[in-house]
Amino acid sequence: MKDSPEYLQKRAFYDSLLTIYGRKPVLEALEDLSLPVHKLHLANSNRRDQLIARMEQLATERRIDIAHWDRKGLSRISKNARQDQGVALDLALPHYGTSARFLEEKHENYELLALDGITNPQNLGMIIRSACAGGIDGILLPRKGCAQIDPLVIKASTGTLFKTRILRCDSLAPTLEQFRASGAEVCGLSSHAQDTLSAVPGDRPTIFVLGNETRGVSEGVTKQCSRLVRIPMKNDVESLNVAVTAALISFRHQL
Amino acid sequence: MKDSPEYLQKRAFYDSLLTIYGRKPVLEALEDLSLPVHKLHLANSNRRDQLIARMEQLATERRIDIAHWDRKGLSRISKNARQDQGVALDLALPHYGTSARFLEEKHENYELLALDGITNPQNLGMIIRSACAGGIDGILLPRKGCAQIDPLVIKASTGTLFKTRILRCDSLAPTLEQFRASGAEVCGLSSHAQDTLSAVPGDRPTIFVLGNETRGVSEGVTKQCSRLVRIPMKNDVESLNVAVTAALISFRHQL
Repeated sequence: MKDSPEYLQKRAFYDSLLTIYGRKPVLEALEDLSLPVHKLHLANSNRRDQLIARMEQLATERRIDIAHWDRKGLSRISKNARQDQGVALDLALPHYGTSARFLEEKHENYELLALDGITNPQNLGMIIRSACAGGIDGILLPRKGCAQIDPLVIKASTGTLFKTRILRCDSLAPTLEQFRASGAEVCGLSSHAQDTLSAVPGDRPTIFVLGNETRGVSEGVTKQCSRLVRIPMKNDVESLNVAVTAALISFRHQL
Repeated sequence: MKDSPEYLQKRAFYDSLLTIYGRKPVLEALEDLSLPVHKLHLANSNRRDQLIARMEQLATERRIDIAHWDRKGLSRISKNARQDQGVALDLALPHYGTSARFLEEKHENYELLALDGITNPQNLGMIIRSACAGGIDGILLPRKGCAQIDPLVIKASTGTLFKTRILRCDSLAPTLEQFRASGAEVCGLSSHAQDTLSAVPGDRPTIFVLGNETRGVSEGVTKQCSRLVRIPMKNDVESLNVAVTAALISFRHQL
């Protein structure tokens, strides 16, 4: 049954669900008709003000289901009781999925970014924005050790989150092992590397691993890298902002 | 007398003075022996705590003059009474100067960034960091309409401010006019431009003008541009963070 077409289709749908929360992000997403919305979740405790009324109106117009919850129920959906402000929204994003699914699809050639220890939501949003504009094929975002998609990230991505293929996984190191086994080159960015970015062959699937700004790529993840490369820097500068690094990688073929 | 070697040398020295303020930035600058420090300024109102004692000790060891001021006198030096915390420091930075001096030096070929309406200190710091690492020859920073060098900018530049040629001017439009008259190509970055960055000829002095993230390059400055160019973006992304744009320009020859 786990392989039936219905099951796989359902799984793909639920894999693509991104739950956002907070009044402003939810209202903005409801107002953006290009975003496929699955369900609006409201806490019964909400005072029925103009904003809530507007959300309900938009959901009705767009024929989106509205679910009502007690405060606890809503926080189980938003997974962030402190910041959800009593509202959450499930988006069904075709670009939001899992690394497992991406591997199953057996793409011939691609370039991905993999994020290791990127904990700052501002940086995560800027990485998504830069990588999307540069045309990267996807971003590997592990649940462990990285910031997750939240209103701050959405804001910093300036709408590009909804156009970028996000590949979720649990933990980065074993996922990179799977990608390597499938034939991908895994390049860790490190300022101490001997080779520069231009040494990376462009003729095979490639994953660029970006590490934490202070600590760099972690040890466990470095072990899964088939090579380490650096961005060539002048004036003895030691490091770049991680979103700038993401941009330089993503744009390097088209400048 | 205005042309005497002594006068010119003195002017060059005073042009190179950057006054920073705030206890942490001042202490860090005093501890960094690579930074040429001219003078330490202290307010008499300061409680003589460990931090102040350490600053005095470092200044004495480094044979740096210490000037004592009342609160008002110090704020005339720091130009920021609210944030100076009673301490200021004059750095004599060889890379910190004016656009007028740069023009007088008659450089043969160069690439500069010019900033128009960059009001966010975080972005200014990140622009400096990216441009320095990419090897840009200088940053034109007008007093009007842009954030100025302050502790937030220094922090965001992660030390690269002290290695980057900063060319101050009063107002950007008339300065760009002077640069054009001297033979420089002035390229305004605009997402609506027809030409892309790769259309810029690399064989003459070039200035890239970066505008405000929301409003773009201002009208008066656009008039001084000899051409407008855009960064080619995928996925219908409309804009990039301005520090990312600065990085892509600065690194474009070496990726």
